[in-house]
Amino acid sequence: MHRINKDRLLADFEALSKFGATVAGGISRPALSEADMAARGWLRQQIEAAGLDYRMDSAGSQYGRLTGEDDTRTLLTGSHLDSVPNGGRYDGALGVLSSLEAIRCIKELGMIPPISLELVNFTDEEGTLLGLFGSRAVIGQLTQQEIDAPRCGKDYLESSLQRAGLTDAGLLQAQRDDIIGYLELHIEQGKRLTEGATDIGVVTAMVGIRSYTLHFYGQAAHAGTTPMTERADALWAATDFMEQARQLVIEKYLPGVINFGVIQAHPGAYNIVPGEVTLAMEFRHGSDEMLDAMNADLLDIAYTVTNTDELSVTAERGGDIHPAPMDERVISAIETACEEADLSAMRLLSFAGHDAQSIARVAPAGMLFVPSQKGISHNPAEYTTPDDMVNGANVMLNSLLALANQLA
Amino acid sequence: MHRINKDRLLADFEALSKFGATVAGGISRPALSEADMAARGWLRQQIEAAGLDYRMDSAGSQYGRLTGEDDTRTLLTGSHLDSVPNGGRYDGALGVLSSLEAIRCIKELGMIPPISLELVNFTDEEGTLLGLFGSRAVIGQLTQQEIDAPRCGKDYLESSLQRAGLTDAGLLQAQRDDIIGYLELHIEQGKRLTEGATDIGVVTAMVGIRSYTLHFYGQAAHAGTTPMTERADALWAATDFMEQARQLVIEKYLPGVINFGVIQAHPGAYNIVPGEVTLAMEFRHGSDEMLDAMNADLLDIAYTVTNTDELSVTAERGGDIHPAPMDERVISAIETACEEADLSAMRLLSFAGHDAQSIARVAPAGMLFVPSQKGISHNPAEYTTPDDMVNGANVMLNSLLALANQLA
Repeated sequence: MHRINKDRLLADFEALSKFGATVAGGISRPALSEADMAARGWLRQQIEAAGLDYRMDSAGSQYGRLTGEDDTRTLLTGSHLDSVPNGGRYDGALGVLSSLEAIRCIKELGMIPPISLELVNFTDEEGTLLGLFGSRAVIGQLTQQEIDAPRCGKDYLESSLQRAGLTDAGLLQAQRDDIIGYLELHIEQGKRLTEGATDIGVVTAMVGIRSYTLHFYGQAAHAGTTPMTERADALWAATDFMEQARQLVIEKYLPGVINFGVIQAHPGAYNIVPGEVTLAMEFRHGSDEMLDAMNADLLDIAYTVTNTDELSVTAERGGDIHPAPMDERVISAIETACEEADLSAMRLLSFAGHDAQSIARVAPAGMLFVPSQKGISHNPAEYTTPDDMVNGANVMLNSLLALANQLA
Repeated sequence: MHRINKDRLLADFEALSKFGATVAGGISRPALSEADMAARGWLRQQIEAAGLDYRMDSAGSQYGRLTGEDDTRTLLTGSHLDSVPNGGRYDGALGVLSSLEAIRCIKELGMIPPISLELVNFTDEEGTLLGLFGSRAVIGQLTQQEIDAPRCGKDYLESSLQRAGLTDAGLLQAQRDDIIGYLELHIEQGKRLTEGATDIGVVTAMVGIRSYTLHFYGQAAHAGTTPMTERADALWAATDFMEQARQLVIEKYLPGVINFGVIQAHPGAYNIVPGEVTLAMEFRHGSDEMLDAMNADLLDIAYTVTNTDELSVTAERGGDIHPAPMDERVISAIETACEEADLSAMRLLSFAGHDAQSIARVAPAGMLFVPSQKGISHNPAEYTTPDDMVNGANVMLNSLLALANQLA
């Protein structure tokens, strides 16, 4: 096995962390902000200094290419340099630097990979502008509609694009067809690795998300004169539902999750038994099969708790996100690299979204996670130890090499 | 035992029901509205036609007095003619007419009661203006503050007062010190009598009401990356609390009631585990002792479900209404009158407020309920059978006579 240059990786990390640094010790580097532009300038210097071919696409994503024997096919690797406002130093940044270091090492070893290897810094993964912006541009999934009415507001998007010398028209022209694989390193943003004392997480899928707005209907009634046993209390039904739904997920669907994030009772007075309750439900799991099963079980519970003459429920389905399974070849390559480096690994689901879920739609993709201390994420206190950073970069280097050979 | 004039009572009821009659078969007669003024004019005619002394006090309550041997002490009886908007024909009206009929009969029998008997139509029981307006004026409990900023708005109050020839200044001058007892007939507004096939309900207390705003605190968290077992979900805690609180009341505190009428989760997004929940809680029972016990048990549950490092709860007490126990002498007089008339009776709590709770603060008071079909209340479909109306008025007549002798 090969090893990355530990000191160089850590020095890069310190250098990059200065762009958008906050007093709290984190960084604030929203996509295409002044701080992000400075970080991008620094990255371009590193790419060019390493002798890689630098390029920015028409959606702003930056690339550093090591030409392979077959230059028509590309194994892409990287992450994103942008952060949420007032975020941490590791999210995205560590992935970009690990991939940079890995490709730099391969070049230094004098290897010519069978296919081209390319570092990527995807634009706006975090969603200050559009979310998974660069990776969706690359697979041709951006739409004119969201560019015309972006969630950040049209003015904000325009001024951000101008800062990077980008145009509206270019955003829909960044699609590529040469990508035949994708590998990304990221911090876990959870506690499974630290609690399991495990070095590396091997992602099996980016979870899918289903959401519903549930409406429970009962009979609004006088909260004094209506005896407890004669109420058709919509909030009572909703409460029963939430209790049973959470129990179901814990007993049957872990590591799947469910959340009730919004709830409102109508008419909404101290002295009126609620006649209607609106409840926002969202649940996540790694495959459409599991989501289908959860979906059926949850709606069953909703209908069961309202199975009286005076109670009823309606379920309005919201926007779904389909699960993005990672490719078994990529998973194996990461696991083999862990074994060779004598690092422990566990397979896990990613409950957050990443650029890998975009690329997984068009090519074999995979992700490896390194431990996040206390699972803290999107927060200045985000922390991964230097040893874990180096472990991750070593796995990145070796799995990238193995994968290039395998996919060639 | 004596009997009221059944035909006259029912004819009065039909006549009164025309004032503010709605297409749906109910009445809309908010306090001091044109419809209420017309009903009040009609009542004055009936009082004067019966040879009783008519008077209106400075808070607009109407009286019809039968002078007794001792004219310095008064046994008051009546209810209210005002209704909620789009209400029913029986609420309040039946009480006023039963008391009118009872006093009229006593006068016709040529009796001179040992103390004076007085019919009352209290202003604005329902609260279109201030709520329990007339009865609180009589016990000196109205405040300048609520008159200056009434919940109906100052303009609405002023124009209503003008219609009845009343002034702001007079409202605080209606206090009386001659009342030594109070008796009121009302429809039950519940189903206990019809379900128990019982003729008369004998009220033992007007329930007290305690209210709290509870704040459950947890940790807002990513609804994807935070495993189910590691959440400090404020809504989960609130749900546990509601389930256990309802269970407690049903197992230990019936016929007491509890209601959660308002609930809100913060920050309030599909994909964020709630970090805070605001919950409105109100519970009712017949005595301060029971309310104290419920209070302690409920707060215990709230503290128990939040007994972890990351969860907590605060309880902010709202405005209380103390229970108004009815006087045992009045309760006995009603029960004796039921026995003599061969009518079945059951003791029960009143879960709604009535003018009797005002007078109970200064003098022995009591109430009798007649059955409400299906328990429907504040609704055009409100209905009490003619037989039940007559039964109630007969009990009113005989308990009024017994009470006058007993309290003299």
